[in-house]
Amino acid sequence: MDQHIAPVALEKASRLLNHGPTVLVSARHGCVQNVMAAAWACTLDFLPPKLTVVLDKSTSTRALIERSGTFVIQVPTVAQLTLTHQVGTRGLADHPDKLAHAGVELFDMEDYDQPFVAGCSAWLACKLLPEPRNQQVYDLFIGEVVGAWSDTRVFTDGRWHFETADPALRSLHYVAGGHFYATGDAMDSGIDDVT
Amino acid sequence: MDQHIAPVALEKASRLLNHGPTVLVSARHGCVQNVMAAAWACTLDFLPPKLTVVLDKSTSTRALIERSGTFVIQVPTVAQLTLTHQVGTRGLADHPDKLAHAGVELFDMEDYDQPFVAGCSAWLACKLLPEPRNQQVYDLFIGEVVGAWSDTRVFTDGRWHFETADPALRSLHYVAGGHFYATGDAMDSGIDDVT
Repeated sequence: MDQHIAPVALEKASRLLNHGPTVLVSARHGCVQNVMAAAWACTLDFLPPKLTVVLDKSTSTRALIERSGTFVIQVPTVAQLTLTHQVGTRGLADHPDKLAHAGVELFDMEDYDQPFVAGCSAWLACKLLPEPRNQQVYDLFIGEVVGAWSDTRVFTDGRWHFETADPALRSLHYVAGGHFYATGDAMDSGIDDVT
Repeated sequence: MDQHIAPVALEKASRLLNHGPTVLVSARHGCVQNVMAAAWACTLDFLPPKLTVVLDKSTSTRALIERSGTFVIQVPTVAQLTLTHQVGTRGLADHPDKLAHAGVELFDMEDYDQPFVAGCSAWLACKLLPEPRNQQVYDLFIGEVVGAWSDTRVFTDGRWHFETADPALRSLHYVAGGHFYATGDAMDSGIDDVT
């Protein structure tokens, strides 16, 4: 495992997606594996951590997730801008070499039989919580996060450090037509949490 | 209506949330109205546009939505940082003056009986699509967007213009504990969409 990758406690895992980044979704079933981009992914719960992701019926990744019951959500970086757009626009069915063409390098995480994308800033290994109606009617998939990791150069001690890390490690926020925004300046509300 | 507010075509409404901003959720039932912040909101479909938002059972806003069947999702700006955090941490039950205290100004949109928060950059009027299992088990609510508007100083012609607009109009991306990131630099993948 890359020297910069370290586990994130599950109770802090929601923070990896809280800022609303575009993500990469990866999955494997048998000898087939794929990676796609998804702008429509969102935290659903703190503990056990859960998330939602929208997966169109036309995607090969969706079929792999339905068969394997597992997937990985990872947070790509500014350095992976072109890779992210490429895996989000080319389908595996028409482009069987899409991963190699996009420069995707996959690696294994011990004890997790899922493909992880190298070079990201965070990884969330998920178990599908089957909800047939959501999946059929809304293309909406719910996952429980069973393992989480971050690149410690940009996420440590349970929080992001975009303001001090290499700008190439910032997250991407997709808009449309190949246009993205990077995560920007840090701001503090200046008030304490009250309930 | 504010001179800078203009309707957004429903087929472009998904773009208002595509970059993953923290949102404000507002709702009214009878003479009670409220506004809360939600970091867990996400686009669900293009047309008719739909979205998801996670609403904890303890929130007054959730009860208003369950009763009225309607709500508004709006995108707050950097200028509304403190307001956003305040309405996200103070509950209406314990703080009946929370809206006044946070400086929230509400306005009406013709033909929509819902409270809209002034000063935001985008507004999505939603009709609740009741999904009792999602709501009870996951606190997950699905809305169909029936009207959309933007502040034309930062979103026109179906796209955001954060790179040229006043930085005070950028969106907020919540992390935790009063810490946010603003939407940052624009980036282009440099490749055409292919399928």
